[in-house]
Amino acid sequence: MTDVSQQGSGSEQNRPVRIVIDAMGGDFAPGNEVQGALQALERSPSIELVLVGRQPELIAALGSSASHPRVTIVHADDVVGMGDEPSSIVKQRKSSSLYIGLDLVRQNAADAFVSAGNTGAVMATSTMLCGRIPGVSRPTIGTFLPTITGRPTLLLDVGANVDSKPKFLSDYSVMGSVYTQLMNGVTKPTVGLLNVGEEPGKGTEVAQQAYELLRTNGVNFAGNVEGRDILAGSVDVVVCDGFEGNIVLKFAESILSFLKERFRAYARRGILQKLAMAAFTPVLRKALSGMDYQEYGGVPLLGVNGVTIIGHGSSSPKAIANMILRAEEVVRKDVNGTIERAIAQAATAAKEQA
Amino acid sequence: MTDVSQQGSGSEQNRPVRIVIDAMGGDFAPGNEVQGALQALERSPSIELVLVGRQPELIAALGSSASHPRVTIVHADDVVGMGDEPSSIVKQRKSSSLYIGLDLVRQNAADAFVSAGNTGAVMATSTMLCGRIPGVSRPTIGTFLPTITGRPTLLLDVGANVDSKPKFLSDYSVMGSVYTQLMNGVTKPTVGLLNVGEEPGKGTEVAQQAYELLRTNGVNFAGNVEGRDILAGSVDVVVCDGFEGNIVLKFAESILSFLKERFRAYARRGILQKLAMAAFTPVLRKALSGMDYQEYGGVPLLGVNGVTIIGHGSSSPKAIANMILRAEEVVRKDVNGTIERAIAQAATAAKEQA
Repeated sequence: MTDVSQQGSGSEQNRPVRIVIDAMGGDFAPGNEVQGALQALERSPSIELVLVGRQPELIAALGSSASHPRVTIVHADDVVGMGDEPSSIVKQRKSSSLYIGLDLVRQNAADAFVSAGNTGAVMATSTMLCGRIPGVSRPTIGTFLPTITGRPTLLLDVGANVDSKPKFLSDYSVMGSVYTQLMNGVTKPTVGLLNVGEEPGKGTEVAQQAYELLRTNGVNFAGNVEGRDILAGSVDVVVCDGFEGNIVLKFAESILSFLKERFRAYARRGILQKLAMAAFTPVLRKALSGMDYQEYGGVPLLGVNGVTIIGHGSSSPKAIANMILRAEEVVRKDVNGTIERAIAQAATAAKEQA
Repeated sequence: MTDVSQQGSGSEQNRPVRIVIDAMGGDFAPGNEVQGALQALERSPSIELVLVGRQPELIAALGSSASHPRVTIVHADDVVGMGDEPSSIVKQRKSSSLYIGLDLVRQNAADAFVSAGNTGAVMATSTMLCGRIPGVSRPTIGTFLPTITGRPTLLLDVGANVDSKPKFLSDYSVMGSVYTQLMNGVTKPTVGLLNVGEEPGKGTEVAQQAYELLRTNGVNFAGNVEGRDILAGSVDVVVCDGFEGNIVLKFAESILSFLKERFRAYARRGILQKLAMAAFTPVLRKALSGMDYQEYGGVPLLGVNGVTIIGHGSSSPKAIANMILRAEEVVRKDVNGTIERAIAQAATAAKEQA
């Protein structure tokens, strides 16, 4: 994999990272966004935050922190809703907190953007305003899932793109490897191609062609993996089209409510069963909490020429704070620069192969 | 949906159903196959069984039941292994229990075929020897998954075909509806198209085109469903390509071992936790057992002009017996005849639409 030592220069490491928060994005905006921002400021001395949204509401939510030396408020009249058409923002919603916030990143007035708003809209607007990292075919969203080994697996794409071409899948593998290496400290992360069998030649035409690309694009390719390998933690990065990635992710997120309902019937049998259930439900919730990663930590939009972290609409203040700190880390570790170099290396390898 | 009253004529209902068992197919063959066959004979007075395999081994396994009046042994020298190439059986393995058994169905010397052997080989050989039901584009394998509602959902295709065309998906929806209606007694089963969002127009090109077909092919179409809708039991039948169906199924099958491992760490905390775990593990196993449906009940190969039930390699005698009784039911309820009529109706509807 790409040599990580090339990341960020010394001088860049010392300056504060400036992060824009779409303060109107989430279901509990601006309250959770503002609380999360304040928590993040306490946890990291090296960030400056720009809150974008309706100024009066933000000032009210900030209270005595409105004059915080590392907080700037930028007013935005309009708010993008969860049901708004993603592609319409750039043309029709230029006074929204989403557009104005991302435009600050585009102008290099900020380093990163954090939102718990409409995922599709954040993705489309980020890509349209900031463009793609050179060489990247399609930006992607990945998510970490818990595994038996205790080390999470990055599954990507989980819904940014459907009908991915083989080159897209190759790019996801490179971006996922860089992200796992830099952010989780995994040296030479292993990459699996999600498929219906382990043997080469299995699966759809796209999967078969992607297999050949992954063999030579510089990632630590472990071959095809199956659905069971995700939770088994067989590899660090699982690559797939956003169609099956999204289906698997949403299936995974539904397991907890399925089991809770099943266990409720058991608890009705008697007092002992009820006690066992009461003791057990928190354990079950904890074991499965990682299935809904976006809820508490946000996920990165990889491949966009600008750092964007996307969170669940219902993100808590703690989740918002985690997203902000993650954004800082993505900037400091120069994830995007490393992706650019790794994608260039993959292209060179492909040419040599051809 | 198709009028069920047209099923099987009166005279057919009374004759015994003759079922071939691939007695060498499973991991514990012929022991489990033979025990399962004997259990099935006890449970149903209206079946006759043909055990295909190495005669001396079968006679030994049958013991005093070798002369059972409703058991016939057909000798086959060869056994298809789990790793054998599915497409090679018809040409190169004509003395295998798989080929000889299915050939009996092709010749109408038997009504159905049951195997716990190599799934791909059973599927390919069934299709090649018996052909497809008129109008069916591709045979499919479905599997039932448990849901919150307590009513299982049929997910199909789960791996018979990848790169399914829209017409294939339409055919799966018709076959799945007929099967759920006849076998589970669900009137007008609802059908969902597995997708990444509920709105029409979501998903891959194939999904978008399939959506239009499902609207008009006579099934009770409830629109797109997402990954979370499977365990939620939002619909009775979930239609998808075998690529994502297989991935979801194998992911589902892996949940139990994932959770058991997670809970082991919890049990190590102390004696109370250990006791809670001991009480709970069987409940968990029971709640999740339906995730590996093939293990205990077998799944039908739908769309082949002959009845084939496929079981897990590790099928227990009870699972084999269940598969045999299911085969009888599929024959008696004339699932294949009903599928043929429903597919013809769908074709008529499509022409009227065009």
